[in-house]
Amino acid sequence: MHFLEKLDAVTGAHDSLVCVGLDTDPAKIPAHLRSQADGVLHFNRALVEATADIVQSYKLNLAFYESMGRSGYDVLRGTLDAIPAEVLTIGDAKRGDIGNTAAMYAQALFDDLGFDAATVAPYMGYDSVEPFLRHAERGVFVLALTSNRGSQDFQYLQVDGQPVYKHVIRSAMEWNEHRNLGFVVGATHPFELEEIRGMVDDLPLLIPGLGAQGGDVALSVRAGIAATGGRAVFNSSRGIIYAGSGEDFAVLARQAAEELRTQINQYRVAE
Amino acid sequence: MHFLEKLDAVTGAHDSLVCVGLDTDPAKIPAHLRSQADGVLHFNRALVEATADIVQSYKLNLAFYESMGRSGYDVLRGTLDAIPAEVLTIGDAKRGDIGNTAAMYAQALFDDLGFDAATVAPYMGYDSVEPFLRHAERGVFVLALTSNRGSQDFQYLQVDGQPVYKHVIRSAMEWNEHRNLGFVVGATHPFELEEIRGMVDDLPLLIPGLGAQGGDVALSVRAGIAATGGRAVFNSSRGIIYAGSGEDFAVLARQAAEELRTQINQYRVAE
Repeated sequence: MHFLEKLDAVTGAHDSLVCVGLDTDPAKIPAHLRSQADGVLHFNRALVEATADIVQSYKLNLAFYESMGRSGYDVLRGTLDAIPAEVLTIGDAKRGDIGNTAAMYAQALFDDLGFDAATVAPYMGYDSVEPFLRHAERGVFVLALTSNRGSQDFQYLQVDGQPVYKHVIRSAMEWNEHRNLGFVVGATHPFELEEIRGMVDDLPLLIPGLGAQGGDVALSVRAGIAATGGRAVFNSSRGIIYAGSGEDFAVLARQAAEELRTQINQYRVAE
Repeated sequence: MHFLEKLDAVTGAHDSLVCVGLDTDPAKIPAHLRSQADGVLHFNRALVEATADIVQSYKLNLAFYESMGRSGYDVLRGTLDAIPAEVLTIGDAKRGDIGNTAAMYAQALFDDLGFDAATVAPYMGYDSVEPFLRHAERGVFVLALTSNRGSQDFQYLQVDGQPVYKHVIRSAMEWNEHRNLGFVVGATHPFELEEIRGMVDDLPLLIPGLGAQGGDVALSVRAGIAATGGRAVFNSSRGIIYAGSGEDFAVLARQAAEELRTQINQYRVAE
């Protein structure tokens, strides 16, 4: 199934634009799980069981799994196995390398791990992104304007009166022959988010930075979806997965996800 | 030991600026190894044994190991274990993410895998690079001007009359409080390489793109080291590791590495 079909189906079926970031830091899981050898996997599985019916997607940042060393692969894989087939999975890897190498990364993320979509860094240009886009059914979110403070350093540099991130967006849109392109735009930049929505029609935007990073839900939803419609994936990681720190962590995570879903839908409906 | 001390020591002891890229594609190893379960590890170990005394460093591109799935971690680890302690190891990962996530990548590459240095992507700015630089003894090569064709897409965009890659270099140089910064500059851009050497004093440059990618050795060495001196790491992957495809692959790889060392040293001495 094409990535967009799956995205639309789960968005409708779960009435949700919520993406839970399973960026699990082994040092931050509840104490009763920390002593277990497979504590992170237990934690992730419990989160998935508690939230799968009310979310649109899960985003797994590979850094957290790589930092676990040898066991990281099994935890990542085990977590993916626990996610119901109808829910979208995003491999947040931000890879970017020369063509033959990018093809290897795409193979790892799409063929081996089976992610429905992945994030990709644009700095190295077309031949670093195309090997991902070539997987015609999988989604490819190119970093445009990121949620962090460092987004100010290079993404806003002015080229012919336009910031670099707009050049990235315009170029990447020319590469979208399989309709599987999207962009990452941080919720911490609502004004720019609105402008970007105007540039990309209904292309999917992956919008991180809600919650711990301070992005405002009302502003982001209004800007990211806007009057023209458009597909959006609103990610929150720490605000949901660490909503509780005791044995009821999964219940509290569900509450946090439910609350975010309701908030988002409220501003969405208000359009 | 600080990364620069180690780099200087091995460069001197082995009289070599050659970095062998262990970017091993399981489909490209000699037929007699392809049928073995641990064929890639055998291949890598044989290459290391055959070349360790005449190279400065090994660069392992993580994409190739990730594409192997679960076994990739053990192959990567086993390869690193086979590299003598005095030879520099570079984790070519091109990671770049928000601060707390970049810290996890740095942990994976430096603390878990134990690389002496890593490559990092600049698009997300200071807080995506600083968690690597914070490891004061490890080297951090920031992508500046890459060897691939896609380097034309964004790295050359003109900002105030200067290309983006020069802005990246100037900014990153301000972050170098532990003297552990370097840059990646492709051998396919000898003119720009010379200009960059002029900007960065004796900072280490990781220069890929020799061999299969078409970079010229004479031009790159003259430009990359130049009259001012300066540390350089010249990487060749496919030209060395696939020099042979039969049972004598390691002997032929050594010959190719030796030849590259001699060529580089010839132009280096000529300065």
